[in-house]
Amino acid sequence: MERPIVTFLGPAASFSHQAAVEFFGKSAELLPRLSFADAFAAVQQGEADYAIIPCENSTNGSVVQTLDLLADPNNLYQDVAVCGVHYLTVHHCLLARRGVCTGQQDYESVAKLYTHPQAWGQCESFLGNYFKGIERQDVSSTSRAAEIVSKGKSEKSAAIASRFAAELHGLLVLEENIEDKNDNRTRFLVLRNIKSKHTALHLFRDMNNCTMQELPAYTPVAKKTLVSFMVRQDTPGALAEALLIFKSYGMNLTSINSRPSRKKTWQYVFLVECQTAGSIGDSRAAIDILGDLQSVTETCRHWGTWTE
Amino acid sequence: MERPIVTFLGPAASFSHQAAVEFFGKSAELLPRLSFADAFAAVQQGEADYAIIPCENSTNGSVVQTLDLLADPNNLYQDVAVCGVHYLTVHHCLLARRGVCTGQQDYESVAKLYTHPQAWGQCESFLGNYFKGIERQDVSSTSRAAEIVSKGKSEKSAAIASRFAAELHGLLVLEENIEDKNDNRTRFLVLRNIKSKHTALHLFRDMNNCTMQELPAYTPVAKKTLVSFMVRQDTPGALAEALLIFKSYGMNLTSINSRPSRKKTWQYVFLVECQTAGSIGDSRAAIDILGDLQSVTETCRHWGTWTE
Repeated sequence: MERPIVTFLGPAASFSHQAAVEFFGKSAELLPRLSFADAFAAVQQGEADYAIIPCENSTNGSVVQTLDLLADPNNLYQDVAVCGVHYLTVHHCLLARRGVCTGQQDYESVAKLYTHPQAWGQCESFLGNYFKGIERQDVSSTSRAAEIVSKGKSEKSAAIASRFAAELHGLLVLEENIEDKNDNRTRFLVLRNIKSKHTALHLFRDMNNCTMQELPAYTPVAKKTLVSFMVRQDTPGALAEALLIFKSYGMNLTSINSRPSRKKTWQYVFLVECQTAGSIGDSRAAIDILGDLQSVTETCRHWGTWTE
Repeated sequence: MERPIVTFLGPAASFSHQAAVEFFGKSAELLPRLSFADAFAAVQQGEADYAIIPCENSTNGSVVQTLDLLADPNNLYQDVAVCGVHYLTVHHCLLARRGVCTGQQDYESVAKLYTHPQAWGQCESFLGNYFKGIERQDVSSTSRAAEIVSKGKSEKSAAIASRFAAELHGLLVLEENIEDKNDNRTRFLVLRNIKSKHTALHLFRDMNNCTMQELPAYTPVAKKTLVSFMVRQDTPGALAEALLIFKSYGMNLTSINSRPSRKKTWQYVFLVECQTAGSIGDSRAAIDILGDLQSVTETCRHWGTWTE
């Protein structure tokens, strides 16, 4: 089997990198990109076989930048589809260079903290206990925070990032699991190019040494489908009408998000996820739903059906 | 008539401040607060009669912090209700101290730009044309950016903020309307305390010198209603069931947002807005809808019905 090329939001040691390794195993060839849009484009253009992109966090909710790419008003990513999902448990650590600090007894020697803006909010209680009033610097990712701290030779600084980032940048883990909620998780979507014959042959579970064959043939598997559409603004009740279609096929709506269409002011693209129990490989219901949706919506699109 | 006390996200000269002045007129007593949560609390505790809070922008979509306050998982704001809406046209300007720069001919003398993170994205084309590669500093609001630039005597800096902020901080407006889309608008919700007898007497249009009496008696007025609820996770189809209720009362769903409940992982609070044409003052339909919603949802709440 050829090594799949997997793209994600870098730099190395980001939580997206960790998700890529957990999901695809160590055999994948990794292609970090500077933005979610660059990762989507890499899949569309065939530079990568897969992308793994965060779509929501259990504490902070939807990742709006990802929703905007899925809304895709200019059809930039028409060959990209969702083919799987991965849940990453997000544990934050406090990291410093060796010599700056050894643990709680000398936390007061740390003069400045670096991390991604989302992480402050996830570690509020820990920071309130030990780092009240210490200067905080926002950076573009937790892995970038670790990198800055590892290079800041003259600075008494610490980063909030993953253990993975500590290992990559040779930092000391002063404290683990400093997040407020120990069930802090991020859900990633796995994307592929629908025109790629190479990726169509893969079954993801193979990569994690858990083959499909291990599941008994009769196990009902929850499957999710993602659909995007706009409703006609001149048709009252059109959104309820559209959502009713899911119900008529026995699909349970599990999430609805709306993003500005960027075509007309106050017009929205709706992103709807629904779930059913069905046999693996059967996405017939999704196709029927799409047919019905086309009669009450605009620019309706099936982003994919996968095993959750 | 007593002067109403109006709270909003400060500091002075923020877009929220501008919305407060446009909506309530100059007679209102203004009470700037440091966060949206502080403004909600001021209304709940009766320190302010009204709050005016941004809920969505036509370019960037929902204001997530506001949605989280409306989701209100701990019932902190149970006496707060939505009673009106205001649309603010958001025009960005490039501002500098006198002497730093006079216009396009010497933009190259500007070494650093300050603004709120949302504003960079709204002025991308202008910044790409004239300020490629110039250092950018994120700050908490556009009015704070103007304040910093006005005080940075030794720095060759400029701010992206409103004309209103330029006037308050004595800055020169180098260029107006630098936003990419000239229909860039923010929608604000007007909140009041339902227990306040004082605010119940006010009709907002009076404050803007456009009295209700000017409308012909037979004009059908679009009214909007905001409702929040959680669906039972063990009931498939519960969300579609809930949304159907709006349709059965002839209400058109105009927006749906979901935010993490912060009680259980992957459980959501849904915020649904719906619209109908009805006579002013009649919120009977909303009350009936609530009754029906209670049978299929959890923690269902009517946030208010207002004239759009």
